Amino acid sequence: MQLTIRKIYEDPKLYKDQEIILQGWIRNHRDQKDFGFINLNDGTFFETIQVVYERENTDDFEAITKLTVGSSIEVVGRLELTPERSQPFEIKAKKVTLIGGADETYPIQPKRHTREFLREVAHLRPRTNLFSAVFRVRSIAAYAIHKFFQEQHFVYVHTPIITANDGEGAGEMFKVTTLNMDKLPRKEDGTIDYSKDFFGKEANLTVTGQLEGEAYAMAFRNIYTFGPTFRAENSNTMTHASEFWMIEPEIAFADIFDNMALIEDMVKYVVAYVLKEAKEEMEFFDKFVEKGLLQKLNDLLHSKFNRVTHEDAINILLNANVKFENKPAQGRDLAKEHEKFLTEKHFKSPVFVTDWPKDIKAFYMRLNDDGKTVAAVDLLVPGSGELVGGSQREERIDLLLKRMEEMHVPLHDLDWYVDLRRYGGAKHAGFGLGFERFLIYLTGVENIRDVIPFPRTPKNILF
Amino acid sequence: MQLTIRKIYEDPKLYKDQEIILQGWIRNHRDQKDFGFINLNDGTFFETIQVVYERENTDDFEAITKLTVGSSIEVVGRLELTPERSQPFEIKAKKVTLIGGADETYPIQPKRHTREFLREVAHLRPRTNLFSAVFRVRSIAAYAIHKFFQEQHFVYVHTPIITANDGEGAGEMFKVTTLNMDKLPRKEDGTIDYSKDFFGKEANLTVTGQLEGEAYAMAFRNIYTFGPTFRAENSNTMTHASEFWMIEPEIAFADIFDNMALIEDMVKYVVAYVLKEAKEEMEFFDKFVEKGLLQKLNDLLHSKFNRVTHEDAINILLNANVKFENKPAQGRDLAKEHEKFLTEKHFKSPVFVTDWPKDIKAFYMRLNDDGKTVAAVDLLVPGSGELVGGSQREERIDLLLKRMEEMHVPLHDLDWYVDLRRYGGAKHAGFGLGFERFLIYLTGVENIRDVIPFPRTPKNILF
Repeated sequence: MQLTIRKIYEDPKLYKDQEIILQGWIRNHRDQKDFGFINLNDGTFFETIQVVYERENTDDFEAITKLTVGSSIEVVGRLELTPERSQPFEIKAKKVTLIGGADETYPIQPKRHTREFLREVAHLRPRTNLFSAVFRVRSIAAYAIHKFFQEQHFVYVHTPIITANDGEGAGEMFKVTTLNMDKLPRKEDGTIDYSKDFFGKEANLTVTGQLEGEAYAMAFRNIYTFGPTFRAENSNTMTHASEFWMIEPEIAFADIFDNMALIEDMVKYVVAYVLKEAKEEMEFFDKFVEKGLLQKLNDLLHSKFNRVTHEDAINILLNANVKFENKPAQGRDLAKEHEKFLTEKHFKSPVFVTDWPKDIKAFYMRLNDDGKTVAAVDLLVPGSGELVGGSQREERIDLLLKRMEEMHVPLHDLDWYVDLRRYGGAKHAGFGLGFERFLIYLTGVENIRDVIPFPRTPKNILF
Repeated sequence: MQLTIRKIYEDPKLYKDQEIILQGWIRNHRDQKDFGFINLNDGTFFETIQVVYERENTDDFEAITKLTVGSSIEVVGRLELTPERSQPFEIKAKKVTLIGGADETYPIQPKRHTREFLREVAHLRPRTNLFSAVFRVRSIAAYAIHKFFQEQHFVYVHTPIITANDGEGAGEMFKVTTLNMDKLPRKEDGTIDYSKDFFGKEANLTVTGQLEGEAYAMAFRNIYTFGPTFRAENSNTMTHASEFWMIEPEIAFADIFDNMALIEDMVKYVVAYVLKEAKEEMEFFDKFVEKGLLQKLNDLLHSKFNRVTHEDAINILLNANVKFENKPAQGRDLAKEHEKFLTEKHFKSPVFVTDWPKDIKAFYMRLNDDGKTVAAVDLLVPGSGELVGGSQREERIDLLLKRMEEMHVPLHDLDWYVDLRRYGGAKHAGFGLGFERFLIYLTGVENIRDVIPFPRTPKNILF
């Protein structure tokens, strides 16, 4: 019977003593004089299965002993339950056939590799325990996000990747062009004639789908995006990539409190789903990557997220008996160490920081009645700091226009965005979740390069 | 009780005679001397709900009569069941409050608009029946695709958007750069010095995630991608966009027959899911967009997809008593009219065309034993022609290298891809489904510009 390792792990008793067929890759191989052990992984499940072969019961014993790590093979054998051992079942092989070999140059040998080295072989690293766990969790978490929103009938919107808006203001942009760089067309005044470019004007890679998402929220009430976004920032940190995926929900007839309720529900839903559906992977992370990870995530599931205004948060920091490297100050952003103190020491829980000074936030955030703060909210979590940023949007057209002018946001690009206030405007709110940042939180893997299949960072575009 | 229109439609009896609160947008408004009717849509559901207000039972009657189409309002009223009428329930308003107005310049008035006009107001068009149906179906179909693969434990892979591979060969590419176009850095020989560019070399937008997907299939066995892809082709047709979404599954230890089984399962699963979850929308398309759509989709669900080799397909066309504009010929591609004849006249069902001439297919497709054809498969469907293209991949390293050389595919970019045959290679197969093409098939909406929220085509990059 053709099976997969996942199927066997789901209910090994079903296949007791039956002849089964498996394909997969050799993770480890030890051979003795008259028998040998192969750890086989077929990609469908985190765990391997042990294949035992014996000289007297296997065809072509000598050939099997020569099989190398990384090779793909087909195994025909009998499933034997071994309840007395730590591995409660194994395959007693009758026949092992080589499909595709791997010689001694195969980079993923069964020993410790540095993560830096494995980035150089990103096409092969998902064959390791660590990265098979990371990228299965990535897949499951992505699905959990879709499931969460779809079950509540949010509409999934594919906002554009190539954009002519440069007023989004979320960061430096990549230019997209088909102009022949060696023969750039020029206008009479010598400037480049972008009317000759593919789209007839300058085009960039998007930094956010929020603005287009808002247009769809004003039609469908509740929407979300989930797609790639880009930053052409020359920063080489553990948490910055040039290309990453974002989830940006937007809800109409909703305020910042509805927004916070949605964020809390979503985060808890995804954490619970991943703990359930990627049990083996999460236990692996807990054991080998971040001790206490499962505790941290279970604590999150059972804690009510706290709420504090930015002003109160700064006061807490100012009154704390701690020497911060960055002195906290009213009106200023929070540093990583401040976030850590608030979530890990003071609140000992995830915390929403609300009502931020308007001068350090984006033009579209709703001005509070004090005239100084906006209805913005960041979610900080123990261990990772800022996980989500969101706000209630400015729905009052006069205040929005004033803010755009003050912040030099070009109106001609965003007149359509202002239309959303001209025609049937309503209070609405939304947030952005950086998917990779969430994965770092979920897995304990610290470097964003290790949670993206083929990461793009400055001067780095392998594969 | 705060409700949504979706909730009410799910089970109106639950709310009989109760006081409920709704927010939404006015789709239509007729007022008489002493009463009026508002068709309210709140975005959560395709259908509107009728709000009846009467002079003697409503606060501020005169103000309500002045409410304009497109405005957002809040309604407090009583749900009344009216089983004797075509609309089996309505809201008897007690109070109607304006949230955000829309004056006579509001572009989406309750009359017929051309689709061309509505593309100019793409930020507002999801407020029409047609586009609310299209984009809810888009969301539901996207989710169905995830659900189909995740239920079978396929791993969802985010393949890179920015790539340095230019050997993918699927079409013209957009260049991605942060170089200052007015001061391009030059090498000594006068050519542009891309080592100064963001990634240290030339970079483009991806045309396919397949190659990276293959790397992940050789680790997880079964994977799929679902992300944006790009073509910098200057073609203005109904079915070409510069930016569109693709689904690219890849399965290991699998051949072209497994591939066809997967395609058939997936297409049927998504069609069935959309028919069930977007019932109102699909009935709307059937009535107003493509007569017979529901019949077509139900037929598909219940037909076994046919299979024919490319050679036999050409013979069928040559022997058909039909004058084609493009003369069919062995060794040549199929034209749209050929596809139509095969699916609509000859087979009267979806049909897989297999074993294509190698010279008109990509370098990575597996050479058949005849040395002339490759194990490629296209799925043609009645009404739309080619929906899916796939193949078994060439897993034999010598044959792959030979083919790359013949087709001038640069090895230095794709050495990592060849590694997948060096180390534990195995037979594998996969396919690409253009998501928008599938939506055109599902909705009957003919122009790709009308199934993408903010479409990008040559010289067109609004919003």
